[in-house]
Amino acid sequence: MIILFGVFIRYDEESDAHWVEFKREHNITSDIENDFYFRYPSFQDVHVMIFVGFGFLMTFLKRYSFGGVGFNFLIAAFGLQWALLMQGWFHSLDPATGKIYIGVESLINADFCCAGSLIAYGALLGKVSPVQLMVVTLFGVTLFAVEEYIILTLLHCRDAGGSMVIHAFGGYYGLAISWVLYRPNLHQSKRLNGSVYHSDVFAMIGTLFLWMFWPSFNSAITDHGDGQHRAAINTYLALASSVLTTVAISSMSQKTGKLDMVHIQNATLAGGVAMGTAAEFMITPYGSLIVGFCTGIISTFGYLYITPFLEKYLKLQDTCGVHNLHALPGMLGGFIGAIVAAAATESVYSAEGLINVFDFEGSFANRGVGTQGGFQAAGTCVAIAFGLVGGAIVGLILRIPIWGDPADDNCYDDEVYWEVPEDEESIPPVLEYNNHMIHKHQDISESNFSSNPQK
Amino acid sequence: MIILFGVFIRYDEESDAHWVEFKREHNITSDIENDFYFRYPSFQDVHVMIFVGFGFLMTFLKRYSFGGVGFNFLIAAFGLQWALLMQGWFHSLDPATGKIYIGVESLINADFCCAGSLIAYGALLGKVSPVQLMVVTLFGVTLFAVEEYIILTLLHCRDAGGSMVIHAFGGYYGLAISWVLYRPNLHQSKRLNGSVYHSDVFAMIGTLFLWMFWPSFNSAITDHGDGQHRAAINTYLALASSVLTTVAISSMSQKTGKLDMVHIQNATLAGGVAMGTAAEFMITPYGSLIVGFCTGIISTFGYLYITPFLEKYLKLQDTCGVHNLHALPGMLGGFIGAIVAAAATESVYSAEGLINVFDFEGSFANRGVGTQGGFQAAGTCVAIAFGLVGGAIVGLILRIPIWGDPADDNCYDDEVYWEVPEDEESIPPVLEYNNHMIHKHQDISESNFSSNPQK
Amino acid sequence: MIILFGVFIRYDEESDAHWVEFKREHNITSDIENDFYFRYPSFQDVHVMIFVGFGFLMTFLKRYSFGGVGFNFLIAAFGLQWALLMQGWFHSLDPATGKIYIGVESLINADFCCAGSLIAYGALLGKVSPVQLMVVTLFGVTLFAVEEYIILTLLHCRDAGGSMVIHAFGGYYGLAISWVLYRPNLHQSKRLNGSVYHSDVFAMIGTLFLWMFWPSFNSAITDHGDGQHRAAINTYLALASSVLTTVAISSMSQKTGKLDMVHIQNATLAGGVAMGTAAEFMITPYGSLIVGFCTGIISTFGYLYITPFLEKYLKLQDTCGVHNLHALPGMLGGFIGAIVAAAATESVYSAEGLINVFDFEGSFANRGVGTQGGFQAAGTCVAIAFGLVGGAIVGLILRIPIWGDPADDNCYDDEVYWEVPEDEESIPPVLEYNNHMIHKHQDISESNFSSNPQK
Repeated sequence: MIILFGVFIRYDEESDAHWVEFKREHNITSDIENDFYFRYPSFQDVHVMIFVGFGFLMTFLKRYSFGGVGFNFLIAAFGLQWALLMQGWFHSLDPATGKIYIGVESLINADFCCAGSLIAYGALLGKVSPVQLMVVTLFGVTLFAVEEYIILTLLHCRDAGGSMVIHAFGGYYGLAISWVLYRPNLHQSKRLNGSVYHSDVFAMIGTLFLWMFWPSFNSAITDHGDGQHRAAINTYLALASSVLTTVAISSMSQKTGKLDMVHIQNATLAGGVAMGTAAEFMITPYGSLIVGFCTGIISTFGYLYITPFLEKYLKLQDTCGVHNLHALPGMLGGFIGAIVAAAATESVYSAEGLINVFDFEGSFANRGVGTQGGFQAAGTCVAIAFGLVGGAIVGLILRIPIWGDPADDNCYDDEVYWEVPEDEESIPPVLEYNNHMIHKHQDISESNFSSNPQK
Repeated sequence: MIILFGVFIRYDEESDAHWVEFKREHNITSDIENDFYFRYPSFQDVHVMIFVGFGFLMTFLKRYSFGGVGFNFLIAAFGLQWALLMQGWFHSLDPATGKIYIGVESLINADFCCAGSLIAYGALLGKVSPVQLMVVTLFGVTLFAVEEYIILTLLHCRDAGGSMVIHAFGGYYGLAISWVLYRPNLHQSKRLNGSVYHSDVFAMIGTLFLWMFWPSFNSAITDHGDGQHRAAINTYLALASSVLTTVAISSMSQKTGKLDMVHIQNATLAGGVAMGTAAEFMITPYGSLIVGFCTGIISTFGYLYITPFLEKYLKLQDTCGVHNLHALPGMLGGFIGAIVAAAATESVYSAEGLINVFDFEGSFANRGVGTQGGFQAAGTCVAIAFGLVGGAIVGLILRIPIWGDPADDNCYDDEVYWEVPEDEESIPPVLEYNNHMIHKHQDISESNFSSNPQK
Repeated sequence: MIILFGVFIRYDEESDAHWVEFKREHNITSDIENDFYFRYPSFQDVHVMIFVGFGFLMTFLKRYSFGGVGFNFLIAAFGLQWALLMQGWFHSLDPATGKIYIGVESLINADFCCAGSLIAYGALLGKVSPVQLMVVTLFGVTLFAVEEYIILTLLHCRDAGGSMVIHAFGGYYGLAISWVLYRPNLHQSKRLNGSVYHSDVFAMIGTLFLWMFWPSFNSAITDHGDGQHRAAINTYLALASSVLTTVAISSMSQKTGKLDMVHIQNATLAGGVAMGTAAEFMITPYGSLIVGFCTGIISTFGYLYITPFLEKYLKLQDTCGVHNLHALPGMLGGFIGAIVAAAATESVYSAEGLINVFDFEGSFANRGVGTQGGFQAAGTCVAIAFGLVGGAIVGLILRIPIWGDPADDNCYDDEVYWEVPEDEESIPPVLEYNNHMIHKHQDISESNFSSNPQK
């Protein structure tokens, strides 16, 4: 990595000490009008989503919180270095010098690129080794850079928040890997595939930071101006709407009317995913509410019915339900984007606004909104195809028995890869009566047993 | 909600695709000088306070963490949609078109508006059903929009951080509801009305995010310029001072000198509440320290003496002690603002500064600082009156026995509204000796009972 | 404190209501070009690091989470008030008026100043009383202001992220205090000097917020322009690199290949510490990776070998291992900065860039890069000397037996200074059969004892 960075990566001109000269030559008078100062807060919001959001969302398992937040950290830190190289290769390689020039926008893009692999991790949580995760990330980031190049540059799609390139791709990538790695005897770890009270509260930290900063995610790399405002507002509204439908459906799906934490932790975010493509379009505020309303319902139903169905009939084990949170809403988001693009009119956008929003410039100056809608739909299919095919291949690679994956009865267990502290409660009590050495927890039955002979 | 948004809500011009045309017509050359880019980071800080701050602050109960953070999420997500309509109706309705135009500042205001209902939730925590909370929010947001219109627009008060319109109103609103919903047999849930070790640590997440971002809260919607700087600096100082006095009083109040987590979680924030109105005034740095100093003392004493007093003599059950953190400091903050406004002089503010800070323009051009002080005090009284009367009425509505509120011995218990995971420790042990099926926790007494016949 | 603020502290002109007049007189047309709006988001990031980052990083102990996050809160809130006075005295005292003028940059600097004392707290965690911590902070902030003045102003060193002035100083300051306060019988508290599962997850909150916002920390007070961009990018890369080497070394160091949470929580941050001085220099992206690579290794080895060595042979008890995370990487960072400065050339920086980066202006206009490198190295030594000598003296003061420090067998125990809630499980069950009063936990052995007579 260091060698590759040494060969290829350089500072862009705004980050280079030649900037003072550059400024004078180009008559730039102020530093603070620099894009950096307007991108940086959004960058940090996205950064929080990647590390705290995804990380803590995956702490919900009772004995895999270390792995959830720790391996997420590892994947993201590895992925973003690799992403700077891969995305740089496609987007900011200067053919004249053979160098890649990076700035703060590269950092946002690298975070986005990692998100695809982190989503895939959600489907694999607890069932793979850290080395396998590095492989998933290595290929995931590479595939991401290629499909992103095809979709955004060749097909000239708009995808501000990455419904297609991030969520649909990442979701199906993870699902395909998980499908290839199907474990028929996973039920042996069933006792650990669930939450405890406090692990669910930890997961809410992840949910909330994802939820709050999603408007930043969807608007982080849009052009400055009206599109960025709209992206933030639309995402905010779709998310708010998702929360209400998720709560309603979650409560209605149970005879007792009780809410399920899994739904609250996940389906509340579906509106943000589905808004990823259309956020910068003129979808209107009530359109955003409708998107959030529908995806909240679909996602909650996904957790209730589709995930068990996939597991039973398609042999697909999806730990976090990324199908319901990322794959399906991402795909829907791609098609919503296509429909909204195809329905764009000059009266709604204004002639200049239309050119500006869809970037109908250069060789794309004559593309109509209908054609754009078609390309958006095609882009969604490309993302899904990359996810499924790429995931299947990576899955096959991961089946080679050299990666140290956990046994079927050791899944969802931090003990395999972490030094886990003994639980406080299992400390032997200081005072012991009648030679009763009382252990707690697992040992309580034993302690009862040991007292039996006295009776 | 979707229909109402469809009828009324539109993007404002900066968020509309016509912006490119608008810019050309109005000779606006740069997007990034747009207010959006300077409001958005503050908006996100406020957003974090609303969802993570208030949410995690309410996780302190041992078995109501799901409800604390989850219902807070629900209320806020519902409330902000309703707030966009209600506040829009009073503030940004264009009479010509009959439409409400929203931008990023509307989002901040909607968050503020929700805060009132979330504060009220603090008094009701654990004692009401989610449906009741929706009713509290529906009326809370509506009342907020009306009292805000009266106080800020008709009375022309200044209230940057909402000591009056948010904290005094929200606090007394919640207290009045709680008073009407008094439960004489609440002691039946007493075993659950307390914290455990880790729930107190979760609550510190809420405290710290509230504490850190309070300067953003108090400065988020002030005019750009010196007032915004002052609001941040004054709030920062008042909060720092509150921490020290809270620790001192908390320690001194116990014979053993031990600190109480309840005080650290709450009273440390009182300085920010009390600074809500006066933050943008020239209260001076040491004035801010004095405000923080006094309110830290008052709030801690409130937790020590006033809350038990209210419960015993006024039949008022206030779960989170919002009286000590919001109602009382908010009221004080309103009156501090009145005093500081009345004491303003041209020598301290400069003639232009005085006009600028108090917005003495248009029909208020001739208002003097003394009059302004009087109106500030009147505004505080209006906020309290709205809270008390509105809360009493909403409380009566909530007494109708159709809302599914929990029984007296089921309060503070997530089991009523959530699918709560079985605790790890209560998993039956794999090996069973002598047919002893040992359950833990709730079942331990039972398990002992079941083993009795053997003796 | 209030009196001192009353005498000395005033708003700076941008925060004063005279700003409207000032603007008109100085032909300033826009408020939003004001530095405030570009510093404020970075300030909030640093603020989060200080309170949530450091605070939660110190919650890892099983029964000292209240103390970790609570005393961190206390120290920081006290320290930043004192820092405004002390740093103001050296940096922004106007000799004409005898006043200190504060603005938002003062707040960032005050947070930085507190960081030194918070680092020192890491070495003392669990072994000192809150009153002792106030003394540590009082002297720590004062010493910080002096050494910062010597290093940055007199020696004219560059130290954007404070490798020298914050980390090396703070680390050695804490270590020296801890060395003087050596407790030979600390093993009596050994049962509490460790983590439990959920306390390690809490600590990851601290780690991640520190990790994510470190680019803001290292770039918060650099000049606007290329240096600030570079600082963010370099820090981001060094941190990413540290994560990978930490994971690799942590895994390789165990026979079982398991990861240790202590390493993941701490050594992953070492790259940010070591980048503190050189971040704004042209260290190149791969240079940043190398720094992160090496310090990740060194820091992890520190936790594995140096901390046990220090404890055994140097009688130095370092609870959080600040030697490995702050002292050593800070010192390395200072020397890396010296080397990179000495190696600076006009071809890499451009002539103007060189002047700009190293601020070779005024009386330092003729200083060469070699000389600058020497001064940077000298600055590092000054910081270490201040830390060691200052810490030793403060340690001696703290040995006076008037400060209420905990007994050797009460260290790492919140019970000494906090009202700790009884654990949930120790609630007596509601139903009691056969007069079995079943307590749980501490009481379980007792309860077994009490049931013995019946048999």
